[in-house]
Amino acid sequence: MPSKIKTALIGATGYAGQELVSILINHPKVDIEKIVGHSTIGEDYASICPKFSEKINLKCQSFDELIKDIDSIDLVFITVPHGQSNQLVKVLSEHPVKIIDLGGDFRLDDLDLANKLYQTENGGLLKQFVYGLCELNKEKIKQSHYVASPGCYATAMQLALLPLLGKLDMESVLVDGKSGISGAGKSLRQDLLYSESAQNLKAYNVTGHRHKYEVQMTTGLQVSFIPHLIPMYKGILCSVYIKLKETYAEGYVESLFDDYYSTEPFVRVTEELSQVKNVIGSNYCDLSIRMDEDNKTLMVFSCIDNLKKGAAGQAVQNMNLMFGLNEDIGLN
Amino acid sequence: MPSKIKTALIGATGYAGQELVSILINHPKVDIEKIVGHSTIGEDYASICPKFSEKINLKCQSFDELIKDIDSIDLVFITVPHGQSNQLVKVLSEHPVKIIDLGGDFRLDDLDLANKLYQTENGGLLKQFVYGLCELNKEKIKQSHYVASPGCYATAMQLALLPLLGKLDMESVLVDGKSGISGAGKSLRQDLLYSESAQNLKAYNVTGHRHKYEVQMTTGLQVSFIPHLIPMYKGILCSVYIKLKETYAEGYVESLFDDYYSTEPFVRVTEELSQVKNVIGSNYCDLSIRMDEDNKTLMVFSCIDNLKKGAAGQAVQNMNLMFGLNEDIGLN
Amino acid sequence: MPSKIKTALIGATGYAGQELVSILINHPKVDIEKIVGHSTIGEDYASICPKFSEKINLKCQSFDELIKDIDSIDLVFITVPHGQSNQLVKVLSEHPVKIIDLGGDFRLDDLDLANKLYQTENGGLLKQFVYGLCELNKEKIKQSHYVASPGCYATAMQLALLPLLGKLDMESVLVDGKSGISGAGKSLRQDLLYSESAQNLKAYNVTGHRHKYEVQMTTGLQVSFIPHLIPMYKGILCSVYIKLKETYAEGYVESLFDDYYSTEPFVRVTEELSQVKNVIGSNYCDLSIRMDEDNKTLMVFSCIDNLKKGAAGQAVQNMNLMFGLNEDIGLN
Amino acid sequence: MPSKIKTALIGATGYAGQELVSILINHPKVDIEKIVGHSTIGEDYASICPKFSEKINLKCQSFDELIKDIDSIDLVFITVPHGQSNQLVKVLSEHPVKIIDLGGDFRLDDLDLANKLYQTENGGLLKQFVYGLCELNKEKIKQSHYVASPGCYATAMQLALLPLLGKLDMESVLVDGKSGISGAGKSLRQDLLYSESAQNLKAYNVTGHRHKYEVQMTTGLQVSFIPHLIPMYKGILCSVYIKLKETYAEGYVESLFDDYYSTEPFVRVTEELSQVKNVIGSNYCDLSIRMDEDNKTLMVFSCIDNLKKGAAGQAVQNMNLMFGLNEDIGLN
Repeated sequence: MPSKIKTALIGATGYAGQELVSILINHPKVDIEKIVGHSTIGEDYASICPKFSEKINLKCQSFDELIKDIDSIDLVFITVPHGQSNQLVKVLSEHPVKIIDLGGDFRLDDLDLANKLYQTENGGLLKQFVYGLCELNKEKIKQSHYVASPGCYATAMQLALLPLLGKLDMESVLVDGKSGISGAGKSLRQDLLYSESAQNLKAYNVTGHRHKYEVQMTTGLQVSFIPHLIPMYKGILCSVYIKLKETYAEGYVESLFDDYYSTEPFVRVTEELSQVKNVIGSNYCDLSIRMDEDNKTLMVFSCIDNLKKGAAGQAVQNMNLMFGLNEDIGLN
Repeated sequence: MPSKIKTALIGATGYAGQELVSILINHPKVDIEKIVGHSTIGEDYASICPKFSEKINLKCQSFDELIKDIDSIDLVFITVPHGQSNQLVKVLSEHPVKIIDLGGDFRLDDLDLANKLYQTENGGLLKQFVYGLCELNKEKIKQSHYVASPGCYATAMQLALLPLLGKLDMESVLVDGKSGISGAGKSLRQDLLYSESAQNLKAYNVTGHRHKYEVQMTTGLQVSFIPHLIPMYKGILCSVYIKLKETYAEGYVESLFDDYYSTEPFVRVTEELSQVKNVIGSNYCDLSIRMDEDNKTLMVFSCIDNLKKGAAGQAVQNMNLMFGLNEDIGLN
Repeated sequence: MPSKIKTALIGATGYAGQELVSILINHPKVDIEKIVGHSTIGEDYASICPKFSEKINLKCQSFDELIKDIDSIDLVFITVPHGQSNQLVKVLSEHPVKIIDLGGDFRLDDLDLANKLYQTENGGLLKQFVYGLCELNKEKIKQSHYVASPGCYATAMQLALLPLLGKLDMESVLVDGKSGISGAGKSLRQDLLYSESAQNLKAYNVTGHRHKYEVQMTTGLQVSFIPHLIPMYKGILCSVYIKLKETYAEGYVESLFDDYYSTEPFVRVTEELSQVKNVIGSNYCDLSIRMDEDNKTLMVFSCIDNLKKGAAGQAVQNMNLMFGLNEDIGLN
Repeated sequence: MPSKIKTALIGATGYAGQELVSILINHPKVDIEKIVGHSTIGEDYASICPKFSEKINLKCQSFDELIKDIDSIDLVFITVPHGQSNQLVKVLSEHPVKIIDLGGDFRLDDLDLANKLYQTENGGLLKQFVYGLCELNKEKIKQSHYVASPGCYATAMQLALLPLLGKLDMESVLVDGKSGISGAGKSLRQDLLYSESAQNLKAYNVTGHRHKYEVQMTTGLQVSFIPHLIPMYKGILCSVYIKLKETYAEGYVESLFDDYYSTEPFVRVTEELSQVKNVIGSNYCDLSIRMDEDNKTLMVFSCIDNLKKGAAGQAVQNMNLMFGLNEDIGLN
């Protein structure tokens, strides 16, 4: 293991990418060696993202330039739009470099589904990726070379469900997801304009959001997932509603959560109902539990910062695990 | 019927009250004769609510002064905090004046429940009130002397459910409610400060919100209702999830809605998913329907402006019906 | 004068255009006969702007179709991007129809400047337009056939300055302008995305904003104008700082404003400092005055709704004047 | 100097106090030993401010308890409302502990003014405080025992003016200040409610804001300062307008700034107009310069995070200087 991990970032100008840069420039065990752009090749990264002015001094390079120097790199982070990392990984896989992909292309273990949703073509590569939900696959991640970091909603949902698997008799699971607008990225869509979204609220993609397949893969549960766009910059609240065949004491369910997460550094089970503001800027997932006995419905409220635990923070948590570091280093 | 309805408003400085003033000063068949305050007696109403400067010229009076002149008044609107209209109505009921109460005290027909939730003591008075959901009780409202205007969430929920009663085989109903912050009123609570709520999101009162009892009263359905506070000023989106025993074609369900609301001036059934911004400032309820066949779940998305259709607009709609006017006059 | 004014709208899908439709569909003396689009020809207007669903039933037409039926139209409103109304007006001017242009092309009386800023080529047409600041040019507007409705910032600034002309000995005028984001329109610019602008604040175009030339034209004052983008949907506050050669009593200055606007229906001089929320949704301009004697600086705070008094509201006010109606009809 | 600085915080539940805790718990050379509360004595700090749950484990203590153990403390941070640190400092000054006061009580060197604005009574104590604007008083701060950390607006203003003193012939200085709502603190004022402030904008305190006296003290300039409340959580933009007796080249002025701040770690002079979003979450002040030659007006746009460089960040910067640490440690 090198004294400092030499990293390259492909696609660092989106919201998740910028968050990743923010974390890595303060991480005591990491150097950012290269930033790979596309339309930005040759430009100063800090001039594109001026909040990094005087904090980082790198020009955006082409992917080819990265490959030329790839032997000097320990780890590549990929934060490009869904469906675009396939080709990059194919080339990178010819070299010994490690990879953490923040996109969806290599998250699902079902090649047909991965192909349908993300145009993932290479089943051989797919098998080499570990699904990087740290609270689920910690040991596998430590041994892995390639990690597919989970989706933001998928992270919030799974952390709300994992402690319950095999413990409660569930009839159905419905998740009302609520995300800040940065979750939709930086694309120039009219509905993402301030004037269209600031005092607005809507559901979208109500039967087909891709993140639910991650949940179904790891939990085996059939999930109704209905995402909503909320007029705030960051943050996710997943309100998870579990119809039960019988009721359980609220305390019993809490104890399942407490046990499951007792040694996890980034999951907090709270008495108070979870609030987005308590996790903004941190890598925490806050979980709170309520039982509606009249309706035999267990409610779990799961909050994360979509750009931290939902993207860049979890990616760095994965990196820490892959390189034998303390899991929480650089994440406080 | 008088050429113009002489109205008095008790409690016009809250958000619903101000909205009511906005509507009534432009209503061609209404005069605002009196505004009754509490801590504001003697003050110029427009100096308290300066957006009405040069639009209305009335001083806030005491309730006693109103009673002294009550014979000159045709209709009293009451917009005081829950639990406070009981005493006012008792006194007013000794006079022939009509009443529309925007609070909850007289909405529920079960005295025990009304007493528990709103300290409503007088079962005799309770029976004289018609529940003012215009799309449900139109004929009764036309004949009524006293109307209890529905709660904001309750309006959005019931309009999403009424067309389905007796038509679909439902297993359970869960409503994830989302409201702008004006729904919580003007009280000086820390969690309502801009700095606490602007980039925040949370559920609240997840098993005991009072509005669900209105829904249960009129629909006979047992409903799980989980409200959430959304960082926007106005607007409600109720995401209504109905677990079915069997699935139905989306088109069939839409036809139930189209039929039920075919002659209603303020309900729109839309192809596109409902959005809060389309109803803000109007008295419309926008409804959209989706069927999740995999999960046998019908989804109805119901949007209203919580201060218009959810409060002041519906109150005026009730007034129009009670006084034999066109239902939509003054509401466009 | 026809019993109802037959109007056509060119460009009604932008924010000012939608506001204009909102006002006109409730205006008792107006019919909207035609809506002219560009990329939207043949589409149902309400399907593009769904908040108008069931309120208006018109398909977008081409400009050519409008011209074919132009004899049935009394008045054309133009709300197209700056620099694009030149050609439209040239064609329309061959017909007897009246015109109100909400864009900048015909606001300035200096052809060179108009050409430079707005590519206005036809000095003959330019001369036929009256500058539609109602509080300045009321009599001219009443007689006019063509009106150029003022810019939003320009309206707020001029209303703050007009009462002072010739009355105070001014040394310099500086205006710090603050506008909500709808002022920048609906264009797909990255800086207008919610995620970029919601918790942001910046100055822009600090020496060259076009609206200052309108102020200089009507007041003869050389003005420093520095606009800022504020994270809110609507509203303008212009903080007008006038360096004086000597100080005057605050009361004297207020009396100048009171006198100047004593009969104006849409200007309010307020004791309290002006606030955007008091004018949102209305056609009012709120003005408040403070004297900083230590610095010989008079401060005037001028608030408008940029889409109402700053655009569509003032355009309708102009229409009312041009057609001999009460100035405030349809605007309350 | 101890290996770690033992700190106590008096008043850590306000916005500046919470920001201070955020910084200090990640500062490698600091331990938070005690948190002193008032109405919160005995409560778990993390239960009051739940975002710190699992990050800090301290109960709020009384001031008396602090004094009992004061010998174990190296430094006390005071973040209490203006006018309240007088009494605390008087007691603390009987012990050898160092003090950084984030409030205004000890900022001004004029006792009469300090007494009038902040009820500061003790001129002897006042003289012992160094005004903690790091870019102005660095050497003094290094030697100091007591530091009064500057006001947020005052910081943004002075950093925009310091490089110009003695270099340009100024006629007058006017500052249009714009601050996010956290600047007004956590008090339960109606105008700070989300529903009152979210889509609003107003000036306040337009002739008497206390921060201008700090500017006048250090620069000798008479300043007009007009603050405005902006609907965003954090951030300040001061638009500084300097009327000059003659114009200068923009490049010359920029060189004055570049020279003045060449070795400063937390001031950036930017080509692009300063934007609040570039400094949010950081300790930077971003400055940009424009010359309006037509009006002989120099414009400096100065952005800070009001809770970081404007409060807690600068306080820690002061601490670093006082304890001989690198100025930027813990602040990246």
